[in-house]
Amino acid sequence: MTTATGRTRLSPDERRTQLLELGTDLLSRHGIDAITIDLLADEAGVSRGLLYHYFGSLQGFREAVVRHAVDQLVAETAPPAEGEPLERLFTSVGVYVDYVRDNYAGYVSLVRAAAGGTDVMREIYEEGRHALIDRVFREDAQGEIIPDTPVTRLLLRGWAAMAEEVVVTWAADPGDLTRDRVVELLALSLPTLVELA
Amino acid sequence: MTTATGRTRLSPDERRTQLLELGTDLLSRHGIDAITIDLLADEAGVSRGLLYHYFGSLQGFREAVVRHAVDQLVAETAPPAEGEPLERLFTSVGVYVDYVRDNYAGYVSLVRAAAGGTDVMREIYEEGRHALIDRVFREDAQGEIIPDTPVTRLLLRGWAAMAEEVVVTWAADPGDLTRDRVVELLALSLPTLVELA
Repeated sequence: MTTATGRTRLSPDERRTQLLELGTDLLSRHGIDAITIDLLADEAGVSRGLLYHYFGSLQGFREAVVRHAVDQLVAETAPPAEGEPLERLFTSVGVYVDYVRDNYAGYVSLVRAAAGGTDVMREIYEEGRHALIDRVFREDAQGEIIPDTPVTRLLLRGWAAMAEEVVVTWAADPGDLTRDRVVELLALSLPTLVELA
Repeated sequence: MTTATGRTRLSPDERRTQLLELGTDLLSRHGIDAITIDLLADEAGVSRGLLYHYFGSLQGFREAVVRHAVDQLVAETAPPAEGEPLERLFTSVGVYVDYVRDNYAGYVSLVRAAAGGTDVMREIYEEGRHALIDRVFREDAQGEIIPDTPVTRLLLRGWAAMAEEVVVTWAADPGDLTRDRVVELLALSLPTLVELA
């Protein structure tokens, strides 16, 4: 629906999503701390009143943006519904590697916002990590790759941290290392680590 | 030397070190952002003038504190001079696990300060990580555990991130997992990962 002034009138949900996508873009380009009322006004004509209406405060908006970015990552790295466990792990790791490579600045600023931020920020990031880890066990319900024990859960957390470090380091400076080789190293390292436990 | 008022007179170096140790203790108990001029005055009677004299600014002090804590960690986790490479790796990992367990709050706040902080903070942390990684290759100059190639350097970075995540998670809630088992899992995982490359 278009108003008399030619602007598209959005539903509250659409408007909220639009603001989150704008915030995710700003996060990617400037980092979380640079998202200010002034920047939102300058870059997108978003007023303080509008922002507070939807998110309560600037901090509320920043947290919603990080949550949106985490949800997006979790959704985009979902493994395919069918296939052998190891094959699906390869696919899922491949999507993750491509995601970090293609959204490098955004991903790095997301990790930094989460790691160094407030307790709420860390909790949002932690929930994302939990969702990814739970998914591995859910997708591999027979325990073909990784049986569900406290030790394997701990190792899986460690593996996720390793994957993050390896992919971010590689994406910043790939050298001779191909994308497929990085995917292979990470995917094969998970069952290899689990064998230790 | 003792002054007329009964205070011990410290040399500038000693005074600087004393301030850094105070800062490291505050970092451990309150996190980096809580280190303010007011806190320093209240907790230790340190004046703004004294702090600026030695560190230029509050931010300069915070950075020096993080550098001090990183240097301390690198020094304390040095492997023994003698022994088989794998045995020395076990010892070094063991010291690291004990360090994190015994300095849990300080270590977590250090990692957070570094990960989410300014570029200078991240650089200090990065230098520490480089020092640890270079030491692995220097201590294993024959490449008995890990040959020095771009891929193994990348995996070693990943392994260090995994070790950090595993030990911090374990130290927060050890459950049934013993310290020796954590050391074993981490130490054995390094050569295992390298075999993939």
